Formats: sequence, structure tokens, C-alpha cells
Amino acid sequence: MKSQDSSPVIDPASLESVVDRLCSTSDHLAHTKASNGGDHKLPSRDAVVEVVEGLRAVLFPGYFGTSELTAESLRFHVGATLDRVLRTLREQVERCLSFVNEQNPGSDPVPEEQTGEIIKAFLASLPEVRRLLATDVKAAYEGDPAATSPDEAIFCYPGIQAIANLRIAHELYRLNVPLLPRMITEHAHSITGIDIHPGAAIGEEFCIDHGTGVVIGETCVIGNRVRLYQGVTLGAKSFPLDADGNPIKGIPRHPIVEDDVIIYSGATILGRVTIGRGSSIGGNVWLTHSVPPGARITQAMVLHEQFHAGAGI
Amino acid sequence: MKSQDSSPVIDPASLESVVDRLCSTSDHLAHTKASNGGDHKLPSRDAVVEVVEGLRAVLFPGYFGTSELTAESLRFHVGATLDRVLRTLREQVERCLSFVNEQNPGSDPVPEEQTGEIIKAFLASLPEVRRLLATDVKAAYEGDPAATSPDEAIFCYPGIQAIANLRIAHELYRLNVPLLPRMITEHAHSITGIDIHPGAAIGEEFCIDHGTGVVIGETCVIGNRVRLYQGVTLGAKSFPLDADGNPIKGIPRHPIVEDDVIIYSGATILGRVTIGRGSSIGGNVWLTHSVPPGARITQAMVLHEQFHAGAGI
Amino acid sequence: MKSQDSSPVIDPASLESVVDRLCSTSDHLAHTKASNGGDHKLPSRDAVVEVVEGLRAVLFPGYFGTSELTAESLRFHVGATLDRVLRTLREQVERCLSFVNEQNPGSDPVPEEQTGEIIKAFLASLPEVRRLLATDVKAAYEGDPAATSPDEAIFCYPGIQAIANLRIAHELYRLNVPLLPRMITEHAHSITGIDIHPGAAIGEEFCIDHGTGVVIGETCVIGNRVRLYQGVTLGAKSFPLDADGNPIKGIPRHPIVEDDVIIYSGATILGRVTIGRGSSIGGNVWLTHSVPPGARITQAMVLHEQFHAGAGI
Amino acid sequence: MKSQDSSPVIDPASLESVVDRLCSTSDHLAHTKASNGGDHKLPSRDAVVEVVEGLRAVLFPGYFGTSELTAESLRFHVGATLDRVLRTLREQVERCLSFVNEQNPGSDPVPEEQTGEIIKAFLASLPEVRRLLATDVKAAYEGDPAATSPDEAIFCYPGIQAIANLRIAHELYRLNVPLLPRMITEHAHSITGIDIHPGAAIGEEFCIDHGTGVVIGETCVIGNRVRLYQGVTLGAKSFPLDADGNPIKGIPRHPIVEDDVIIYSGATILGRVTIGRGSSIGGNVWLTHSVPPGARITQAMVLHEQFHAGAGI
Amino acid sequence: MKSQDSSPVIDPASLESVVDRLCSTSDHLAHTKASNGGDHKLPSRDAVVEVVEGLRAVLFPGYFGTSELTAESLRFHVGATLDRVLRTLREQVERCLSFVNEQNPGSDPVPEEQTGEIIKAFLASLPEVRRLLATDVKAAYEGDPAATSPDEAIFCYPGIQAIANLRIAHELYRLNVPLLPRMITEHAHSITGIDIHPGAAIGEEFCIDHGTGVVIGETCVIGNRVRLYQGVTLGAKSFPLDADGNPIKGIPRHPIVEDDVIIYSGATILGRVTIGRGSSIGGNVWLTHSVPPGARITQAMVLHEQFHAGAGI
Amino acid sequence: MKSQDSSPVIDPASLESVVDRLCSTSDHLAHTKASNGGDHKLPSRDAVVEVVEGLRAVLFPGYFGTSELTAESLRFHVGATLDRVLRTLREQVERCLSFVNEQNPGSDPVPEEQTGEIIKAFLASLPEVRRLLATDVKAAYEGDPAATSPDEAIFCYPGIQAIANLRIAHELYRLNVPLLPRMITEHAHSITGIDIHPGAAIGEEFCIDHGTGVVIGETCVIGNRVRLYQGVTLGAKSFPLDADGNPIKGIPRHPIVEDDVIIYSGATILGRVTIGRGSSIGGNVWLTHSVPPGARITQAMVLHEQFHAGAGI
Repeated sequence: MKSQDSSPVIDPASLESVVDRLCSTSDHLAHTKASNGGDHKLPSRDAVVEVVEGLRAVLFPGYFGTSELTAESLRFHVGATLDRVLRTLREQVERCLSFVNEQNPGSDPVPEEQTGEIIKAFLASLPEVRRLLATDVKAAYEGDPAATSPDEAIFCYPGIQAIANLRIAHELYRLNVPLLPRMITEHAHSITGIDIHPGAAIGEEFCIDHGTGVVIGETCVIGNRVRLYQGVTLGAKSFPLDADGNPIKGIPRHPIVEDDVIIYSGATILGRVTIGRGSSIGGNVWLTHSVPPGARITQAMVLHEQFHAGAGI
Repeated sequence: MKSQDSSPVIDPASLESVVDRLCSTSDHLAHTKASNGGDHKLPSRDAVVEVVEGLRAVLFPGYFGTSELTAESLRFHVGATLDRVLRTLREQVERCLSFVNEQNPGSDPVPEEQTGEIIKAFLASLPEVRRLLATDVKAAYEGDPAATSPDEAIFCYPGIQAIANLRIAHELYRLNVPLLPRMITEHAHSITGIDIHPGAAIGEEFCIDHGTGVVIGETCVIGNRVRLYQGVTLGAKSFPLDADGNPIKGIPRHPIVEDDVIIYSGATILGRVTIGRGSSIGGNVWLTHSVPPGARITQAMVLHEQFHAGAGI
Repeated sequence: MKSQDSSPVIDPASLESVVDRLCSTSDHLAHTKASNGGDHKLPSRDAVVEVVEGLRAVLFPGYFGTSELTAESLRFHVGATLDRVLRTLREQVERCLSFVNEQNPGSDPVPEEQTGEIIKAFLASLPEVRRLLATDVKAAYEGDPAATSPDEAIFCYPGIQAIANLRIAHELYRLNVPLLPRMITEHAHSITGIDIHPGAAIGEEFCIDHGTGVVIGETCVIGNRVRLYQGVTLGAKSFPLDADGNPIKGIPRHPIVEDDVIIYSGATILGRVTIGRGSSIGGNVWLTHSVPPGARITQAMVLHEQFHAGAGI
Repeated sequence: MKSQDSSPVIDPASLESVVDRLCSTSDHLAHTKASNGGDHKLPSRDAVVEVVEGLRAVLFPGYFGTSELTAESLRFHVGATLDRVLRTLREQVERCLSFVNEQNPGSDPVPEEQTGEIIKAFLASLPEVRRLLATDVKAAYEGDPAATSPDEAIFCYPGIQAIANLRIAHELYRLNVPLLPRMITEHAHSITGIDIHPGAAIGEEFCIDHGTGVVIGETCVIGNRVRLYQGVTLGAKSFPLDADGNPIKGIPRHPIVEDDVIIYSGATILGRVTIGRGSSIGGNVWLTHSVPPGARITQAMVLHEQFHAGAGI
Repeated sequence: MKSQDSSPVIDPASLESVVDRLCSTSDHLAHTKASNGGDHKLPSRDAVVEVVEGLRAVLFPGYFGTSELTAESLRFHVGATLDRVLRTLREQVERCLSFVNEQNPGSDPVPEEQTGEIIKAFLASLPEVRRLLATDVKAAYEGDPAATSPDEAIFCYPGIQAIANLRIAHELYRLNVPLLPRMITEHAHSITGIDIHPGAAIGEEFCIDHGTGVVIGETCVIGNRVRLYQGVTLGAKSFPLDADGNPIKGIPRHPIVEDDVIIYSGATILGRVTIGRGSSIGGNVWLTHSVPPGARITQAMVLHEQFHAGAGI
Repeated sequence: MKSQDSSPVIDPASLESVVDRLCSTSDHLAHTKASNGGDHKLPSRDAVVEVVEGLRAVLFPGYFGTSELTAESLRFHVGATLDRVLRTLREQVERCLSFVNEQNPGSDPVPEEQTGEIIKAFLASLPEVRRLLATDVKAAYEGDPAATSPDEAIFCYPGIQAIANLRIAHELYRLNVPLLPRMITEHAHSITGIDIHPGAAIGEEFCIDHGTGVVIGETCVIGNRVRLYQGVTLGAKSFPLDADGNPIKGIPRHPIVEDDVIIYSGATILGRVTIGRGSSIGGNVWLTHSVPPGARITQAMVLHEQFHAGAGI
């Protein structure tokens, strides 16, 4: 009977219908809270950028942030910016800890002291972060014939920006802050194309030239005076799986690069191998075994070269 | 007589003179309209970003857009954001259609119904887009030993951002919307370094790790559970030319990648070749022919290795 | 003795203590001025972006900046935007000259005439910059089967954006403006992943497709109708050192690429070599010697191919 | 039976319940459209501010908008700004006409020609608006012993800002544009406290000093060289009602103020009375009848004055 | 004697010296916290504006906030906006309660339940607020011959804006929220010049025309259908002092205005007097005693009127 | 002959034609410079707001600017903000001096020392400005039964904002800075409706309640503990003219108000009269003569009061 069809047909492409379907799925793509929740918030990308920009103004005063400092006003600006940064950082650390906590239903709320201790330890690490960055700036200037001054490196070089973010993120990683370190290095990744996991441990005078496409994995250990070019990967070869077939987390699986190594563009080094002190790894090389100190590794490329008079592609 | 020279000399480097020269050339670099034109506008990059950000808030509610949703308020926010997005999108679609129309002088104005149908079809596709993205998030989490939760993948991974933009853009591409799909994937390209043409057809559980330098061409067909690393190119080998020597558009010219394939960093696969199910393509491999299912392709790299005691570069 | 403990203990992790240590180091990371200084300022990243955006609106009117131009209003908008750009540029040029000057303590202040001459010469170069860009747009459209119109190339292609920034920066480089040219190409690098040194001299109809990871060095000379793909490096092989072991600046050290050359993705060409007219360099090739005109260089890749029936990674 | 009470009780203070009540009322406080509507929009306050700011840059170039004009660049800036303003204005005029149309259900859509004619007529009126404003600036400077230059009046005086908005709004009022004129004078009202209805017809050399609290009604007619102080009201005495008891709209009901009149602070003049040429109306006077030319009206205030030696309140 | 000259002279106008003096005074102008304090913050003006703008979008949907609502999308927008507003409001209420608490050293921290109850009660009051505002819009339109539609009143009239802010603030005042109600009415005061204390109790169909300079005191009680013009003061006559000579807070000290009263511009009514039902108070009247229902009060102004033939001032 | 008509008719309402007419007039409404001019700029309204906001953060730290100060961070924030404010102020002072100079063609450029001396003197005056404002806050709190704490007065009261701007502007006025003081008080005028000329000399514990419509003239002298209500005018009676009929600038022409005077709403006092110590001036009073100490002046208002039973207007 056609009277049965008289009920209103809901257009499956109507706004309401689509909203209902988007909201009814039971996957994990929606992040909601019980309605009695207070003011729990996810960490904020904008706040992370603010923290990073603020720390750059603290670590390179005059180059970033306020640009017309005098010897008299320097302390005021560094102190005021640092105070503001720490407050923003504290809130973001608290959000990250709560976010992770919330995924472990039985766990207690984050104690305020824990956040306070983290901020205090992070603050105490800043002079050392600054000392390391000073060596990075020196390396960037001295190694680049196109550089006209260390200032230019501070001001313009994407490598310095990526390393600064890494050194900041690494301190938070060491303090077991979740999520935030990764957000900080992703911020640099987005701007520079240099993707360094915050877990990587990196020595003095570290230099990345051009940098687009560089990837440095979580458990890398990099010595002093190491220099990388664009497109270098220091990655994992394969993931040991646990009994359930899931990758085991936290196992050392990325290269150890000793002091004074240089790795040219496009080279790929995978697995927990050691690149010995003073080695040089050529461009586009694919390397999955260790090399002793002082090695010179290049690709024995066999080129097909055809020469003829015709032009064009 | 030199008195004839007394007429005012126009300085060729004066503002007026340069403006005149910039405005008088007859090339296609200026986009102007007849002066009686109504309010024709080019598509807006800012509006495209707004659409993409809005859709991310709809597809991953709580992670993007408003962050403190409850079960009660979820529908309101998804509905309001989606309504706003669709209105902005509708205007941009209309601009894109008009922009292309305008280049074909004889064509009729864009009928309003056409835009309406496109928006309706796009809206209807969103639940499926969401379903696919849920599988991508799962793949990103499960395949990365450094990932601590699926939430981290949603929140921080550039691969997820690039794939989300692609899946949105692909629906508009299928609806024959000009320009806009490309603007959406370029937005992701700019942020992540991952360049996927909106025409690419991509299956479930797609994962791109690190991603900088990845290029995926227009006619690629990618199966389920495929995993790519940074610097992978799925490109065209050469372009068939038509009688006038122009590339023929729309011909399948990029690889087919079957289910369960993994392609490591820097690998380049060119042309309409097929990478068989379950294959693994090694890093920096250059491949222009098909491989059967289950293949393991690696580069037989011959390395020159010199070992000596000296240090330094 | 407990009296020894009575002096107040300064907490080494207190704000004041850390600020003191950050401000007391004698390295070059802080940029301060004598307190009587007038209004010396560092160049501003935001102003540089403003200049570049403004010049794009002048060079591609209607596509960037105001979008609804008529034949009547075109001149007004080009003139007004150009006037504003030149004023901003003038201030930035002055800041850059002063910044460098300040590092050479004995030098005189920057004479205002010098800045004026630079701006005038830059202005005079714009029609030629525009002419070159018109050829680049043509090349981008004609070489890409996925391109639907030249407008799409102007509007969406990262290659065009990178080349536009380069051509603008190159004029300032030729006028010996410090810092600023590099800031302009770094702006494009950050957005597109294409890193071109402003010193590179590049001919007509230049095309970079996809582009992420491209690096072009300072002393490169590139002919007409050259086409590059993503990940191509045109770099220096090694740096001649002076008597003190420092790299000698300004020596030609990057490739010469003649007319009608095409270089595929991931290829690396290092040193002052010449790639002859009409050559084609294959993907991932590593090249450190010159090749004659018309050469076809590809990698003689030996692949280990294992085929078996198993699926999965 | 109490089992009847087991149905879930909807909390009347829940979000959903309040939203339902807010959305279900049938009053006129919600402005919605049929769901098939295209892109009808209400006029935008921000756009109105943009129009007013743009016109100030056109009418007082160098003082507002771009501040460093030269004789050469002046035309470019005035032309570009004016072109932009007219386009924004055109869209707002169209919105206002549609908004009113929509309230008269049977009426036709607004023809595009109508908007075009309005913009054209408004454009043609600008030189006269400028001429009048030049006389207003002169009056402000000459009448104020605290003014140091005409520039100060242009730059700082709220009276000039209010009159500029009025003169712009009045032209749109004469062209029968609905809503927009009122929005323009309300913008000035909000900033200056001076409330002039756009219908008021005002002669040359008009001056309002201080201005807060001034009210000038719709049908006022004000001659040349009139000067008002803060708190002056030129209002309506009472409203003639029609047969239904509603105020009859459009009837002349506000004062006529002839040339060379000065009205001091707080004076109130109500009704269609005439203040004769050259009259002076004293502060706080309440006047509801006409006065002949040359009159001096002051309040015969009887003050209670008590004098005693005590201090304090 | 060397001791006289050897000590460094601190320039009393140096930055450090002035900062020291500004920071060392012991007055109440600085608002600081103990250094171990968590994240206590003062209420934020920007957040208050956000709350008010959001509530206007909820109370007048389509006129404020998103402007292109359909019957289908209305609920989504009202719900999403209201949810966002309530969250912002909750945080501000919490800050205000803490701020006041902090001034009473012994008091307990603000319990979270208290804030929750306030928000819940405020939410429940919104339908009534909306009902009252509908009557105010009706009154504004019906009483103004220059008004063309109720929409114009909603959209443009400062009186409606001031009353909307008052009605919102009054609910918070009744819920004993400190500071915030005052911030909300001050926001309207700044924009409209209408200064209503949030404590004032105001009936239906309230109308303020023009409004600049209107002042309505904390303990005013205003009936239905009351109409005020610009510059009207409903103030306190004098403040009863307590034993210490301080004003006693909270005593009824402002006028009661009964139904259907109209008060013309500049009238001042002071003290706890009653203006009887249906009265009309003339412009500039100064009134400190009660008047019975139906009274017509006007100022018996004696004007000095001098008439002469001379023109000009 | 009709061939004479063949010349193109320029549409007088075309953009070009109107631009020409707007740019060709020889009045003073356009502010242009010789084309060789460097970077002369008018003072900037936005910078003035920035200066005022910054000074409020310095004078009321914790209430404005950064809100979560500790005893430790206070000095850093005050110092950094003050340093930034002084630099912005210095540039604005320089612009104002140059602007005035430029109107006196023969005059020398502004020497940098002059600006430096002004900034130094202004800086030295800030502790006294702060001391005075502390007395104003005290007066606002103690005199208002609705005030709950001094903090509320600092945070919410328009009177405090207007007086703070005045006290800042007055110091610059005393240092003979042109334009800027007026811009600062106009900023407060726009927000509060309180219009105080920066020349006014005002004692301690000054209080303005509600404030809309208050006008205080340039040569006013106001003692300690004076209290004003909304709508009070302290103005000039008439302007002595010089031989050319122009008002003579700088002559004392506004009231002297001695200590402990209170002036109620709407009162107008004009001319160089003296309001004796401890006097009280009633609302709406119009006063043009001096009154002795301790006077009580009220308006002997004769009211027409008609009482009848009818309701409504």
C-alpha cells in the first residue's frame, strides 16, 4: 500500500542526517568528555608555538622577540619573556599529563607538584641548552662558505631553527612530558622539512645544511661536530615485534653517529649501527651496517651515459 | 638643436614609468575583468584553509576546533561547524567553476543548481571519508613503535594531516570541481612536504611516515594497508604527446600499488607499472617496471669503503 | 658551624638565577646595543613577507592581492601596491646594511643615497623580472599533463612561488644587499621545500615540478628551458680552504646547467661541472663530473629482486 | 503508579532543553532563511567600518590610510583605495536592499543595475563631499583657541570624524539606501558620542566641539557656519500619529537652524522650529519655539546660593 | 675626600631606577601573587566581550554571529555557540569569585560546585531574558518614527545593545557573581554611552532612545513600557554614612519609575523617589521628589531672549 | 559639425575622473611629501594606544598587561614593558615634532637629543604619576557605595581610565610635545565619553563618576579631592580675539576649582571663575561667575507639575 510511503523520507544527504552519522560512530576519532567535566583541554598548538617563539627570544635575545635591546634592558626582557613562557608551558605540560592520564581510566589526577617539578627542572636546563646552541651556531657559520656572519645563521638558517626546537623538546622528553616534545619538533618539521624525534641525543656543534627531508629517529645518539645535509635519514631497519605481533617500544633501533662524522645528502643509514669517529658517508648511500672510524663510504655508482647530438627531452 | 632636449625626460626607473610597463604587457599574468563585471572573485586561499580546518573539526571532533566537547554538545558543534564549512565551500566551488568558465568565452554562467548538487554529494560522502580516516589513524599508530596512542597520531602526525586533506580533496576531484582539490592538497604539501595529487585513488589503512618529499601522481591507484616512507615518488615516466606535441592529459601514467605493499624512503617508482600485493620496495630504489606479488626489491648497492685512521672531514 | 648556613641560598633553578646566567654569558647569541642608540632595528621577517606578497600582487595582478581588477583600476592597484612595497623594502634594506655595518666597528653609517640607489635599481629591474616569470609560467603549464591552465600554475604551483621569490631575491643579491635576499628565498623554502640560493643565475622558462627537497647553490648557472624535479641537488663538492683552514668564499663551486636540460627526481650533481645542452639526468643519479651536450645519464641500478608467494611486510 | 515516573526527566536547565526553548519561540528575534537559499547575507558591521576608513583615506589622503604619500604616488593610492571601497560598498548596498526586500514577500529580487546606479551616483558625489569637509576643517580650526593647526583637527577631532561619517551617510540616504546610512552614523556615534541621523541636511563650515551627547534628528536643516557644543539636542517634540496610533514617518519634525547660529552645551531645541540667522542659544536652554534672526537666548537661571565657612561635602 | 666622588651615581631617570621606584611602593596598585601560586588569573575583558557577543548570537540568531541560518541549521548554531559561551563564562565566573576570595585572606577556595550552580541557573534564565528583549525590540520600533523595521532596531540601535547587556548582567548580578556584571555593562557603556548598573531591575518594553549620557543607578526599579531619552540620570541623592563616615552599601537610594513613564533628554531624577504610573518628565528637569501617577513635569524655564539685527557670533 | 563630438567623452562619474578631481584640489586635506623624502610618518593612533596600554600595565601591574605576576617576576615585567613603551613613545614623539616642524618650512630638523631629553623627563615623572593615580583610586572607591574594592575601581571604572590617560598626557603636554597628548586624551574620550584637555592641571584624589559628557578645558586648575559627575562642563565663556579676529591662544579661560569641591551631573561652569574650596554645585546648574568657599549652589527650578489620572504618553 502506498500509504506506507507517506512517512517523511529523511534525505540521507541532509545536514542532520550526516551529522547524526558522523556523531554516532563508535570509533576513537571523537574526543569528548563526561558532561560534568571541569575545564579539561587538549594541548594547544598555538600555545606551543608561543612557547617556542618565547624561548627563542630568551636564548637568542635581540634576534627574536624584542629587537632593540640595550645592556640595561636585556635582563628585563629575558626575565619577563621567560616568566611568561614558563607559565604557558606549565599549563601545556599539565594538559599533556592529563590527556595521557585520561586514557588510563584508573589513574589519579595529575598532582600539581609534578608539573611544578617539571617546570623547575626545565628552567634549570636552559643555560646548558643555550651553551649547546652557541656551539651549533659556530658550526653553521664555520662550515658554510655562503655564510657571512654567525648572526646570519641565527637569523636565517632553518637548520638552527630545527636544532633549537630539538634541544628544547629533548629536555622535556627527558622529563617524561608526553605529546609536547613531539609537537615542538613537528613545528620545526613543518617549517624546515627537518624531522628530528625529540628522543634523539645530540652532541655539540651539530650542523644540518639545507635540511629538507632529514629524518633522525628516537634512539639516535649523535656525537660532537657532526654535519648532515638534506635528505639524510637516520632510521630504524625493522621493528622487533612482541608476542602479539606489535612493535616493541623503546628498544634502541637507530644509528649511533660518533664525533666528527659528515653525512652527505640523501644518504640513508638504518638500524642500530655505529658510524665510527671521523667517517664520511657519501650522498645517496644506503647503509645498514656499522663502519669503523675514519671510513669513507661512497656509492660505486655505475652510470649509463649515452651521448648524442640531439637536444630536448 | 639641443634646446629640443629640454622636454621633460621621463625617468625610466620612476614609479609611473615602471607601473606603465608592468600594466601594458599583453601576457596572461594579469587577471582583470571587464569594468561592468559584478562581483566575480578568484577562489581564496584563506577560505580553503578555513574549509579544511573546519572539516578536520568535523571529522576529528574534540581534537581540532572546539576542544572541550561533551556527549551532549558534540552534535551541536559538529552540526554548526559543518553548516559553516559547507557555506564557505559552496562559495569557493562557485568561484572555481566560474573561473574556469570564464576561460571558455562562449560558455554559459554556472547554474546555481550545479553548485548545490556538488555540495550535496560532497556532504553525503563525509561519513565514508571519516570511516577511511579511522583506518588510517589505526595504521599510523600500529605501525610506529614511537607512537604512544592513536590520539597522538591524530594530533601530531603530518602523515595523517596530508591524508585527511587528500581524502577531502579527492571527493571534490571526483565531483569535477576544478582548482579547489589541488589547492587543498597543496595546503597539506606546504605544511608536511607530502605532495599527493587529488586524483590519486587510495585504499584503507594508508600510512605515510615522516613523509617529507613524498610525491604521489594523479592516476595512482593504491590498495589497502600500504605504507610509504619519506621521499617516495610514485610518478610518471614520460608523457605521451598528441599530434601538436602537447602532453595528452588524463591518461593513466602512474603506478598501481596493490594491497599490503611497503615502500621505503627515497624509492622512486615511475610509470603505469604494478607493484604486486605484499611486495616490499627498498630505500632509494629506482623502479620502472612491474614486480609480482610478494617481491622484495632492494638496491644491490656496491659501496666504496675506505677505512683509515685519520679523523675529521 | 651553622652560622655558615645563615646566608640566603639562591635557588639555582629560580627565575632570577637562570636569567642572570642567560644574560651573563659572553658569547654572540645576544644582540644588544649601547644604551644611547637611536632606533636601530634588525630586519623583520614579517616585513619581508609583506614585500614578497606585495610584489606578487604587482607581478601577477588579479591573482594575488586585490582580486577583482578591471582594466581601469589595474594601474591604480599596481601603482599603490608597488609604492607601498618599495617603502617597506627601503626600510628593510637600510636595516640590513646597518646590521652588517655594525659588525665592522670602524665603518661609516649607511648613507641614505645608497639605499635610494638600490631601490631605484630594483624598481627598474621589475619589468624584466615579470618577463622572465611569464616564461616560467608558460613552461610550468606546457610541461605538466595535470595542469589545466596557466592560471592554475600561477595560482597553485609551489615551483612558481619558489622561482618568483628567487627572481626577486636575485635582483637584490646583485645589488649587494646583505641578508634580505636570503630571507626571501628562505621564506619560499619554508613554504615549498625548495631551497634556492639567491646568488643562482637562472634563465628563461625555468620549471621545478613538485620541488620538495630541491637545493640550488649560490654559484649555479642555469640556462633556458631547464626542468627539475623534486629532490634534485645542484651543490658544491668540497670547499677550497684558505691558509687559515676557512672555506674561501665566493669561488664558483656549483654546476653549470646548459639550455634544455632535464634533471629527474633525487639526482645530485656536485661541483663546478657542466651539464651540456639538452642532456637528461636520471633520477637518484649521483654525478660529480661534466657531461657533454645531449647526454642521457641514468643509474645502472642492479636490483636484488626476490619473488615469493608470501604477503605482508 | 510510580513506575510512570521512571521515564527520564529532562533537566529544564540542560543545554538541549534551553536551546529548544530559544529556537522554538515564534517571535522575530531569529533571522533565518529557507534552506534552499543561496548566499543571502545581512550587511556587515566590519565591512561598513572598512568602507568608512577607506573613504577617510580617500578624502584626507596622507592623514588616514597610507601615511607617506608623494605627489607621484597620491593618485595611485586614492584610486586603489577608492576602487576597493566601492566594491565593498556595492556588496553592502546590495545586502541592504535585499534585506529590506525580503521583508516584503511579494517583491522582486534587487536588480543588479539598481546597485550599479547607486554606486555610480555615490562616486560622483565624493568631490562635493570633500569640498564640504574642507570647510568643516577650516571651521574647526578657526573656532578653537586650543587648535594648533588644521591638521590637528583632521587628525584628532571627534567632531570632524562625526561630520565626515554624516556627510558620507547622507549621500547614501539621499540615494534611498536602507540601513547602511544609519550603520555609518552609528559607527561615529559609538566612537564620538555624537548621534546625527543620516537624513539631516547640513551646510558648510559645520562645527561640533567636544560633541559627546549631541543628537541631531532626521529632518533637521542646518545652514552654513553653524557651531554646536556637547550635549546639544536638535530633536522632535512629539510624533503625529496616524489613524492606527502609529507615528507617521517622514514628516518634518526637527528644527531648522539658519546660517551663523551658535548653540551652547546642553541646549535642547525641539520640534519644527526655526532658529533665525545669527542667533545664539545659551547652554542648557530648553527651547520649543522659533526665534528670529540675531536672537540671544539664555536661561534666566535663578540659583540658590548658600555661602558658609564649612568645607567638605 | 675620595669617598665623595667615588660611588657610582645612579641616574634617577634611568630605566632601572624608575622601575625600582615603581615596584617598591607599598600601595595597592600592583596585583601580585605568592610565587608558588598556580594559575590564578584576573577576569579578562576580551573574554567578557566574547561572552556578550556570543550571547547576542544566541539571543538574536542570524543578526549576530553566523548570518546565514536556515531552519535546519539554527539549532546547531545556537547550541554550539551557547556551549562555547557557557564554558568561557564559567571560567570568568570562577576567576571573579577567586579574585574576591583572595581579598578575604581567611576564606576557602571557591568550590567547583558553586561555579557549576551559577552557570546552570544562568542558563535557565536565558529564555526569559530572550522574552524580555523581544518586548524591548518591539518598543524601540514602535516608538521611533525613523525606524523602518524591528530588524533595524536589533541591528543598529545602541539602546537595544545596552539593554541586552544589562539584562544579561542583571542575571549574573542576581546570582551574586562579583565584578563580571559590572564589566558587561561597562562594555555597553563604552560603546553606547549608556551607563546602567547591573543591579537595576527593569520591566518589559524598555526603551532608551539615542542614549548617550544616560545613567541608571544600582537600586533603580523600573516598570513596564518606560521610555528614556539621552542624558537622563536616575541617580542617588546622597549617601547615608555609617559610624566611620563610610557610605553604607546596598541601601535603596535610586528612583522607582512606574509603568508607562516617559522621561525626556537631560532630565535628572535623584534619590529613592517614585515617579508615578504614566507620568511624563520634561527635558533638563531636575527632580528630587516623588510625583503622582499621570503627572506632567516640565521646567518653567524663563528665557532671556534678546533680538537684534546683527548677524554672526 | 558632429565630428567634433567624436572625441571620447570622459564619464564624470568614472573612477579616473573622480580620482583626478579628488587629487587636483589645492586645499589642505591631502598630506603629501616631496618625492625624495625619506621615511617621514605621521604619528600613529595604534602606537598611541599601545603606549597607553603599556603604561597602564606599568602603573597598575597585574591588573593590565600580564596578569599573573609574582613578587619575583614583577620587576622583569615592569622593566620590559616600560622599555618597550619608551621606545614606541620616542618614535611617536619624534614624528609629532617633525610633523609640526614641517609646517614651519624654514625650521631645522628635530635634533635627536631633543627627543631623548623629552623621553628622559617623561620617564622621571612616572613615579609621581603613579602616586597621584593611587590617590585617585582611593577616592573612587571611598566615594562610591556601589564599589566593592579599590581593585574594582582600577579594573572597571571609566573615570580611572580617563584620569590615567590625562595624567600621562599632561606630562607630555608639560614637555611641549605637540599632538600626542591630545591623541592620548581623545583615546580616553572615545572609550569613556570623558573629554579632558591634556593641559588641565589636576590635584590629588580626583574623581569622576559615570563621566559620560564631562568636558574639562585646557587651562582648568583643579585642586585636591574634587569630585565630578557625568555631563559636567568646565569650559570657556568666550574667546578674546586678536587684531585679526582670531582667538588668542593660551590665555587662561577655564575655571579654577579649589580643593574639596563637588560638582553634580550636567552642571556647566564657564570662564576663568573660581569655585571656592569646599563648594558644592548642583546638577544642571549654569554658572559663569565665581563662588566663595563653602558655597552650595543649586538651581531654583520652577517646575510645572500637572497631575491627572490619565496614563500613557
